[in-house]
Amino acid sequence: MKTFSIEDINAIINGSVVGQTTNKITGLEQITKANKNQATFIGNRKFATLWKNSKASLAIVNDKIALEPGENRVLIKVKNADLAMAKLLESFTPVTPYFETEIHPAATIDKSAKIGNGSRVGAGSFIGRNVILGNNVTIYPNVTILDETTIGDHTTIWSGTIIRERSVIGSHCIFHSNVSIGADGFGYRPNDDGRGLVKIPHIGNVVIGNAVEIGANSCVDRGKFSSTILGDGCKIDNLVQIAHNCVLGRSCIMAGSSGLAGSVTLGDGVVIGGSASIKDHVTIHSGATVGAGSGVMNDVPAGKTVLGYPAVDSREMLKQWVALRKLAR
Amino acid sequence: MKTFSIEDINAIINGSVVGQTTNKITGLEQITKANKNQATFIGNRKFATLWKNSKASLAIVNDKIALEPGENRVLIKVKNADLAMAKLLESFTPVTPYFETEIHPAATIDKSAKIGNGSRVGAGSFIGRNVILGNNVTIYPNVTILDETTIGDHTTIWSGTIIRERSVIGSHCIFHSNVSIGADGFGYRPNDDGRGLVKIPHIGNVVIGNAVEIGANSCVDRGKFSSTILGDGCKIDNLVQIAHNCVLGRSCIMAGSSGLAGSVTLGDGVVIGGSASIKDHVTIHSGATVGAGSGVMNDVPAGKTVLGYPAVDSREMLKQWVALRKLAR
Amino acid sequence: MKTFSIEDINAIINGSVVGQTTNKITGLEQITKANKNQATFIGNRKFATLWKNSKASLAIVNDKIALEPGENRVLIKVKNADLAMAKLLESFTPVTPYFETEIHPAATIDKSAKIGNGSRVGAGSFIGRNVILGNNVTIYPNVTILDETTIGDHTTIWSGTIIRERSVIGSHCIFHSNVSIGADGFGYRPNDDGRGLVKIPHIGNVVIGNAVEIGANSCVDRGKFSSTILGDGCKIDNLVQIAHNCVLGRSCIMAGSSGLAGSVTLGDGVVIGGSASIKDHVTIHSGATVGAGSGVMNDVPAGKTVLGYPAVDSREMLKQWVALRKLAR
Repeated sequence: MKTFSIEDINAIINGSVVGQTTNKITGLEQITKANKNQATFIGNRKFATLWKNSKASLAIVNDKIALEPGENRVLIKVKNADLAMAKLLESFTPVTPYFETEIHPAATIDKSAKIGNGSRVGAGSFIGRNVILGNNVTIYPNVTILDETTIGDHTTIWSGTIIRERSVIGSHCIFHSNVSIGADGFGYRPNDDGRGLVKIPHIGNVVIGNAVEIGANSCVDRGKFSSTILGDGCKIDNLVQIAHNCVLGRSCIMAGSSGLAGSVTLGDGVVIGGSASIKDHVTIHSGATVGAGSGVMNDVPAGKTVLGYPAVDSREMLKQWVALRKLAR
Repeated sequence: MKTFSIEDINAIINGSVVGQTTNKITGLEQITKANKNQATFIGNRKFATLWKNSKASLAIVNDKIALEPGENRVLIKVKNADLAMAKLLESFTPVTPYFETEIHPAATIDKSAKIGNGSRVGAGSFIGRNVILGNNVTIYPNVTILDETTIGDHTTIWSGTIIRERSVIGSHCIFHSNVSIGADGFGYRPNDDGRGLVKIPHIGNVVIGNAVEIGANSCVDRGKFSSTILGDGCKIDNLVQIAHNCVLGRSCIMAGSSGLAGSVTLGDGVVIGGSASIKDHVTIHSGATVGAGSGVMNDVPAGKTVLGYPAVDSREMLKQWVALRKLAR
Repeated sequence: MKTFSIEDINAIINGSVVGQTTNKITGLEQITKANKNQATFIGNRKFATLWKNSKASLAIVNDKIALEPGENRVLIKVKNADLAMAKLLESFTPVTPYFETEIHPAATIDKSAKIGNGSRVGAGSFIGRNVILGNNVTIYPNVTILDETTIGDHTTIWSGTIIRERSVIGSHCIFHSNVSIGADGFGYRPNDDGRGLVKIPHIGNVVIGNAVEIGANSCVDRGKFSSTILGDGCKIDNLVQIAHNCVLGRSCIMAGSSGLAGSVTLGDGVVIGGSASIKDHVTIHSGATVGAGSGVMNDVPAGKTVLGYPAVDSREMLKQWVALRKLAR
């Protein structure tokens, strides 16, 4: 457990210290759950009244909120308590899971694979033919990386994740547990005799930029003959489906359980709310937002917010909801 | 295959036997599919007419349903045929998958891990540093349990499941295949230069009570600095998303493909229908029910049933649906 | 990399060649991304105007679309460019991931298991007691197949997939990464003392026909006492939930993130759109279609298309949507 003085903490977040305490800080906690060795955060006026009865010895507070520290307690006033919290979390991050050796003897690594300096591969992981891992790549136990895949420097792959053959993964990416990259797209044609379906081979691949994060149990399918592409900085939550031939620009966000059908295009900085789904071949232009739970069937212009099922301009959808509520009375 | 006489079966379910048969019972089956060595169940009047042509030699019947057994066939009349079925299923449960040895030599177990009496670890499973498994824990093949995690007595973890570091899992839990526990929550802040997003570290953990069941490919993310918590007796179906900092009370039920965004609170005994999703920071109070497919954006009072997208009181939503249907004519 | 002449390609798709080129074809690509060694496809008039500026040396074109090849470029005119593309994709399919030996020494195979001729098992895979694999079965690394399961000839199981005990899988199936077959169904009964829930054992199994494909991270739960059944030729996309006791006929299609609650019956050739969900015990008769995002609460007659939440006849739902839009103005 790491231990911090008030001075240590203020050196990180650079605020104004009010009050003093003899307690050391060893962790961070919500205001109602904190103990005397924990710091908490008050970024919103509605939490300010909870400070009096909180057991925390330290609160990082937005400087527009009027509060007194109280006895043997400290406030550090900052412009943005949420940003200060994000920075402190980095300092309090505990050690990551332990690797006994860089390459565990219970990993299976094809002799043609190339593994960069400082990279680590856990027990039970499989690294296929001609795979290339950059430097400082972390592969946790029981990961599978199939042939000809390349992974950039400083990327972390958590356990249970499967990366199919010929994927191209950037640097500084994080893939969480049980992710599936590069499975075949979902495409069939009617059989020549009209009975049943014949699989369309998917000979493309998946190309993922730098600093992309993909949540647990999410899927990115390979392209039919070209690539499914995620641009730099995309952040994908858990249980998200990204079908074959989708192309995501830079820094798109997809929240939990959302999904893109085949050949959807997202511009830069598109935000897809939780459980929303997008019809195949739709384009959502840069800076647009899709509200949670929406079903999008048409292209969305740049910067626009759409909502509902079927999704329309969000103000229009709110009017529809109001109108329906009135109608029912 | 286990074999039961009518007397063996009635010793378990304690009903009134009507009729007799020379056939032995070796299994349970639906009324239309059963053969002469199988028992079936008639818990609902609409199935009673199927008894005449069923091949089953035995039916367990609700005692309010008037039926005759027929030749060489038996009825056992009980107050609640569904409850009797649940009890019989326990007796007919076949053997579980075989462990050649308690700890398979192809498992990788850190020497600091502590494994209780009668616990078993399958081939390919990884048990990290300082992990503690209680007594009679079953870890099927190809499970990954990372550092400092503790698991209570009699818990079963099926193959493909990943439990990240510092998780606290109760006793008598069942986690099905490919579950992801303790992946990082989905949280970012804008970069200082305004371009792109910076990951907010998630240094909390997951705390799961006793007798919790989690379905295949479901996800429970770790808290930002405190814990994501599932209370005793929660039952979670497949492909369910539980985001960072959610707190579920006792005996909550979440059906397939449903999801909770970050910091959602469920009271005790809350029921979330299939494919429903709940907005971040919403509280659903004890005994409330969310209908299948709903999108919940506001707090739900105790005991209330909400439905629809956006979800409102279920009777109100049914009225909206009727009004819209009329309007369209 | 494979190399094809125009004649090689036309031998596969059997069209009329117009024009000539000195370039060899080594791949397939979308019309806007192709280079001079790639072939592209024009199956729709809206892509025809892109041909002039495309760098592709060859386009396979629907014969009703009027186009000229241009200098050093070729058109092959066919009745159906999409079908021609599907056939060509088979010829261009690259080699599949490499197996160093048929049975990898880092696989764990119970000595009672039977493995057919030409079958391959990758590193880290587990094959349980009395499992039977047919001929030419491919098990990629880190797959888990538990006791008494049988798998037919020519079936392929990708990494991370878990098949629980007593499953019956047909021939020519493909299961993608991190699929969960045969997890317990989601069923509980109230405890005798009225507090909390007791698990109902699920002693049935999963039975899957021939030529069934199941997408990444999808789930098929085992039956309560009989079987969950997928008929021949069913095609299931990623992140799909199929609950206990569902019965799917032949050649059903379920798109990404869709779900069936318990005991749903699908006839033959039913199509379920992406993110749609079906209530428990509903029957959707042969040839019916459920639109994307729908929530189906009632049986659907054969051949009918339903849409919306709650789903009704699709024309009726479109009318409702129009009426609501008008009302809101």
